Amino acid sequence: MKINDELNLTMLCDFYELTMGNGYWNCGYGDKICYFDMFYRRVPDAGGYAIAAGLEQLVDYIRQLRFEEHDIDYLRSRGIFSESFLDYLRSFRFTGDIWAVPEGTPVFPGEPIVTVRAPAVEAQLIETYLLLTINHQSLIATKASRICRAADGRAVLEFGSRRAQGIAGAVVGARAAYIGGCAGTACTLSDEMYGVTAGGTMAHSWVQMFPTEYEAFETYCRTYPTNATLLVDTYNSLKSGVPNAIKAFNNVLKPLGITKCGIRFDSGDMAYLTRRAREMLDEAGWTECKITCSNALDEHLIEELIHQDAKIDVFGVGERLITARSEPVFGGVYKLAAVEEPDGTIIPKIKISENVEKITIPHFKKTYRLYGRGSGKAMADYICLHDETVDDSGSMEIFDPESTWKRTTLSDFEAKELQVPVFLGGELVYELPTLEEIKRRCAEQLDTLWDEVKRFDNPHGYYVDLSPKLWDIRDGLLRSGGGGCA
Amino acid sequence: MKINDELNLTMLCDFYELTMGNGYWNCGYGDKICYFDMFYRRVPDAGGYAIAAGLEQLVDYIRQLRFEEHDIDYLRSRGIFSESFLDYLRSFRFTGDIWAVPEGTPVFPGEPIVTVRAPAVEAQLIETYLLLTINHQSLIATKASRICRAADGRAVLEFGSRRAQGIAGAVVGARAAYIGGCAGTACTLSDEMYGVTAGGTMAHSWVQMFPTEYEAFETYCRTYPTNATLLVDTYNSLKSGVPNAIKAFNNVLKPLGITKCGIRFDSGDMAYLTRRAREMLDEAGWTECKITCSNALDEHLIEELIHQDAKIDVFGVGERLITARSEPVFGGVYKLAAVEEPDGTIIPKIKISENVEKITIPHFKKTYRLYGRGSGKAMADYICLHDETVDDSGSMEIFDPESTWKRTTLSDFEAKELQVPVFLGGELVYELPTLEEIKRRCAEQLDTLWDEVKRFDNPHGYYVDLSPKLWDIRDGLLRSGGGGCA
Repeated sequence: MKINDELNLTMLCDFYELTMGNGYWNCGYGDKICYFDMFYRRVPDAGGYAIAAGLEQLVDYIRQLRFEEHDIDYLRSRGIFSESFLDYLRSFRFTGDIWAVPEGTPVFPGEPIVTVRAPAVEAQLIETYLLLTINHQSLIATKASRICRAADGRAVLEFGSRRAQGIAGAVVGARAAYIGGCAGTACTLSDEMYGVTAGGTMAHSWVQMFPTEYEAFETYCRTYPTNATLLVDTYNSLKSGVPNAIKAFNNVLKPLGITKCGIRFDSGDMAYLTRRAREMLDEAGWTECKITCSNALDEHLIEELIHQDAKIDVFGVGERLITARSEPVFGGVYKLAAVEEPDGTIIPKIKISENVEKITIPHFKKTYRLYGRGSGKAMADYICLHDETVDDSGSMEIFDPESTWKRTTLSDFEAKELQVPVFLGGELVYELPTLEEIKRRCAEQLDTLWDEVKRFDNPHGYYVDLSPKLWDIRDGLLRSGGGGCA
Repeated sequence: MKINDELNLTMLCDFYELTMGNGYWNCGYGDKICYFDMFYRRVPDAGGYAIAAGLEQLVDYIRQLRFEEHDIDYLRSRGIFSESFLDYLRSFRFTGDIWAVPEGTPVFPGEPIVTVRAPAVEAQLIETYLLLTINHQSLIATKASRICRAADGRAVLEFGSRRAQGIAGAVVGARAAYIGGCAGTACTLSDEMYGVTAGGTMAHSWVQMFPTEYEAFETYCRTYPTNATLLVDTYNSLKSGVPNAIKAFNNVLKPLGITKCGIRFDSGDMAYLTRRAREMLDEAGWTECKITCSNALDEHLIEELIHQDAKIDVFGVGERLITARSEPVFGGVYKLAAVEEPDGTIIPKIKISENVEKITIPHFKKTYRLYGRGSGKAMADYICLHDETVDDSGSMEIFDPESTWKRTTLSDFEAKELQVPVFLGGELVYELPTLEEIKRRCAEQLDTLWDEVKRFDNPHGYYVDLSPKLWDIRDGLLRSGGGGCA
């Protein structure tokens, strides 16, 4: 069972996608080719970068797109759709093109993550789910990246299913957390479906179920001698939990020659408890016993615990990761960038807003990431028209699109396109990477960012610049009021 | 297609439910009858009440529970489960009892929302999904209740699918928002699946797709003359959007004798824009034109807009509702309360914690809500042992379980049990109410709460008290250190 592979989520769209679709269809605009960009405007948690994720689920969705008879019946029952449109929906398939930034790539505000070129009805219909999947998974991958960065090499496990916002919040969320750097999850289904390593040992109920804490620990060690992590805070962590754990290790594991084991704290003062527990374990000879902590952790608490010299080997992170609690929305949007005339001419389109940050970048575009050849570090992203190319054999001047007097000349750089073709003419042309490949890509690409971009407090704002041609087109549309107010 | 009805979500469990299950099974505890309570500890957003929701999805899940061969194969591949346990899983079904508070009921911290009595393996396995669905939907229903309360009788529509955390975040989230008081949703699938009325009209892309804003509006009015809500902020709301909308209404709707129509703002200063737009519409004779606003709204912004005399008839609320952005976690937990000896004796169990608020209420219990016969208002909830009864023909003294000297004598009250039986011996014995019935129940039950409990700032803490017998049992277990540290 794969939640996305087998589910037909065609009807998971905002109702206005359908009212607009019917409108386009009936006024003869249904086949009008248009270009949409999906991008985001602001990094969550005032961070310096986000991690793109969710493309695989978008691909699954696009491949399954079709209206079933009961969907058509439902739509007819609403009494506002023309029979001609409903009939068209019967054979509805996605026939357009999609370019996207591969999953696991750091992305920055304003640049297209997904670009769609398709007939108006198709491009409009896919808006909701496209945003939903990319927003959700990019949110969680980004949060996981922050948390893993705070853990500074220690393992972070995703423990949040019970507090997730729905099924996919848990299952797909664990996938995104894995991309962002987590070592595994508690969610069994996410392992079965996606191969996100699932693990876990015991809850307080296990300890309570037995007549004594010691019996609970001893039974667990006998059942799982090579994977015994004992939860020590059911009654009293230091007076009862840790001593009973040591006793169980001594009585069960030691005779078997096993030295690897673990304890877990789920409450209390983690800094104090883990330092004391480490001493007790070491004194008893259990120097390889790992200490796991879980209790409403996030990147800031983890940083603070490490700063306090807490003796923690593994962090289990629940609700604050799986819901991205501190900022649970990745505000990606999907905006019309251009329409195409029958002769192939592309007419750029802009959305002007009283809120300046809501103004869009018009036209069919592509984006390059510019890496320094010496450092290997990403220096800037450069958005240009679809038919422009960047020559990285010489030097190039880039400028800040808001403060155009801020200019830098780059030389000795390598330019790589950010987006790859995913669908062309409705056909999947992209070989989906494995989850391990995506996770590795994420780690590698993060290494190309300067630490200044990745720090939590006042990160350096990464440059996302426009080509002079693109800047002029945008400026012209802004000065003319968008060209459509008449 | 029903996401929960047809999906088998048995594997959507924390891995430790399975390791514990295998452990119970192998040590002879698999059939040990135990009691678990699901409850929450703190109202989100520092509010005074929460709305219970998600039971229908729990019922769907329980009825579908079964391990498929590929699940067994996956578990075997992990190399830690006994063949005897895997064989048992082949015929695994839920055979226990479940009691629950009906959806739409206000609930308070500490009291059992769901109580499970079942053999240990079964009761443990269902923990994750039970928490996931009740936590998620109670979170959203509670947030919706707050937002609708702020809107003070004006319609609130749920617009958040694109920012939801996964598929069910959107589809099931819209269901919960409807229970909490929303008038409808933008999510088409939530209408098709659950009957949450879906609606919507146009995005900015519709306006941009046409040569001019006026042509976009005119075409829309011709297509949907009886349902024309025009988005007026694509270029310039007051200089272009509203005048073009009036022109389209005049040219298309007026000749048809239609007086009902609408405009929508999605950006800008809503208080100023809507007051000016109202004047312009009224001057042009479109007094029945409704004004919808949507732009990162929540209960506080809505209160503020109404306070500023903004002329808004309908609020479209997106990301801040569908993710409960200000506090996106409903921290429900599932804790062992008792185990049953073969002779039927119930042994109460407690979880003690260094964090006092994490200490549980032991034993198999039931909860009464006590209503004043004169006012019809809820006065207190009263948790007692399963075999105690409340006699509401006389008077009764209740006391604060933390500060036991705080005592009140109630008289002239009616006691109603909060939970209803849902499964008995594995059989569904509860007739699931329709969504409309749940929504109505929520509104009616909210009316039984005093306004002091419902206000946003410093709400009155509703009383949740324990019977003297139950208090004594808890106190005894606390004094003995939980009875299991040895």
